Amino acid sequence: MQKELSDHTEILVRFNEADPLGIVWHGHYIRYFEDGREAFGNKYGIGYLDFYRNGYVVPIVNVECSYKKSVRYGDKIRVETTYHPCEAAKIKFSYRLFNVKTEELVATGSTVQVFLEAKTSVLQLINPVFFEEWKNIHLRAQ
Amino acid sequence: MQKELSDHTEILVRFNEADPLGIVWHGHYIRYFEDGREAFGNKYGIGYLDFYRNGYVVPIVNVECSYKKSVRYGDKIRVETTYHPCEAAKIKFSYRLFNVKTEELVATGSTVQVFLEAKTSVLQLINPVFFEEWKNIHLRAQ
Amino acid sequence: MQKELSDHTEILVRFNEADPLGIVWHGHYIRYFEDGREAFGNKYGIGYLDFYRNGYVVPIVNVECSYKKSVRYGDKIRVETTYHPCEAAKIKFSYRLFNVKTEELVATGSTVQVFLEAKTSVLQLINPVFFEEWKNIHLRAQ
Amino acid sequence: MQKELSDHTEILVRFNEADPLGIVWHGHYIRYFEDGREAFGNKYGIGYLDFYRNGYVVPIVNVECSYKKSVRYGDKIRVETTYHPCEAAKIKFSYRLFNVKTEELVATGSTVQVFLEAKTSVLQLINPVFFEEWKNIHLRAQ
Repeated sequence: MQKELSDHTEILVRFNEADPLGIVWHGHYIRYFEDGREAFGNKYGIGYLDFYRNGYVVPIVNVECSYKKSVRYGDKIRVETTYHPCEAAKIKFSYRLFNVKTEELVATGSTVQVFLEAKTSVLQLINPVFFEEWKNIHLRAQ
Repeated sequence: MQKELSDHTEILVRFNEADPLGIVWHGHYIRYFEDGREAFGNKYGIGYLDFYRNGYVVPIVNVECSYKKSVRYGDKIRVETTYHPCEAAKIKFSYRLFNVKTEELVATGSTVQVFLEAKTSVLQLINPVFFEEWKNIHLRAQ
Repeated sequence: MQKELSDHTEILVRFNEADPLGIVWHGHYIRYFEDGREAFGNKYGIGYLDFYRNGYVVPIVNVECSYKKSVRYGDKIRVETTYHPCEAAKIKFSYRLFNVKTEELVATGSTVQVFLEAKTSVLQLINPVFFEEWKNIHLRAQ
Repeated sequence: MQKELSDHTEILVRFNEADPLGIVWHGHYIRYFEDGREAFGNKYGIGYLDFYRNGYVVPIVNVECSYKKSVRYGDKIRVETTYHPCEAAKIKFSYRLFNVKTEELVATGSTVQVFLEAKTSVLQLINPVFFEEWKNIHLRAQ
């Protein structure tokens, strides 16, 4: 059985990310997810550049976000990013965003990525070897 | 039985919307959905400002997007926006994005919005009267 | 003597471009300039892709913007883009933004671009031949 | 005689900030300036929200940026923000952006802001009292 793997990072809401209602425009959360995914990738050695060095790009094929509480300019958000192992040649992350000050859950979401060979853009139907190895190292149940 | 209501608008992909892989960054599609929703709102009299004049704001509580084909700088996209009537006090839209040149379906998605009273931010559990009237005018089956 | 060359295009201010004060965030004007430059390039055959096909990229090395009047969500802006010929191997544009409804001048600005050979990123000290030809065709005084 | 006041903050270039050429799109630097100004404001007590609490908003009336070196996804930038005191009712900042790894200067720029009374949007011709006090505290020559 495989365990899940998580990481978290903090983001300060920028002035230009809030809309005329004073709250963060919903589209920016997709960027917060990317910030979370990137912090995760940097920590565990599977950032965009790591995939690229191994010959792959990993475009997003699905994203979903549910908004629970509004977030305002000056708020600090904590993004909790969790990798969910799966058999298919896909990379699944879920995200939980918290208001650091109030500890309220402000949003949840998920992304799914696939593997394309960088040179040919051909979709991979099985996980690349280096990624299977990464999973073995990081996700093996003890 | 209620019919659905659709509209479409065209968008030219900007240089700054493409990422280092040359394709549109996935987060920008959320903006294309908004462009579609806005064109719909302008056509049928339910833009953000119409809601506001009636005393309501209509924040997004859920967004979902599935990516089928990549889109590049210089491509023209057609956003087809469809309003899906529902009994609950919610506004549901679905979106289909096409590459104008190739007529390929490049992405699909959906959004859900709720009604908050603008002054108090109180969530509305039933549809505001003006919105019910709008539905009666535009969605009544002939 | 060389004449100047101008073009104009219209832009509808998006909801997500306005900030918590209800007015368009100043950074978005840089994008409006790009929209103007792009409309100009499409009209006169010197868009980014035209440069690229001729073996060059033309990065911005300077941008300047002065803000005269605020612009709000729902406003329509007209970008007037003017090409200013110069002897150096540079591309100089100036921009004037007007509120379409009130005809007020809302902002002015300028950009300077240089030529890099696309393959080597080497800065060009004289204008590429194709660009001199473009200038001869479009800017020759009658 | 008044001294200058500086601060610096670091920014990690996001994937979605790089353009199809692999380098950061020039418009994003305006946001880096804002990040620098904001870090400065938080440190010295003159952030947007501090102005607002004192009854003023401080819109940008001019921005200028010169680009020296390109910056790429994954690069870390240090923004050095310097406040330049002036007699007029204006707020002048200059910015220097460095590539943290190479210590190269990648861009320079400046912004000018004015004071509007928040309620009336009336332009202030002399510095608000609280801002003069702030200057006295922080900029007095010893």
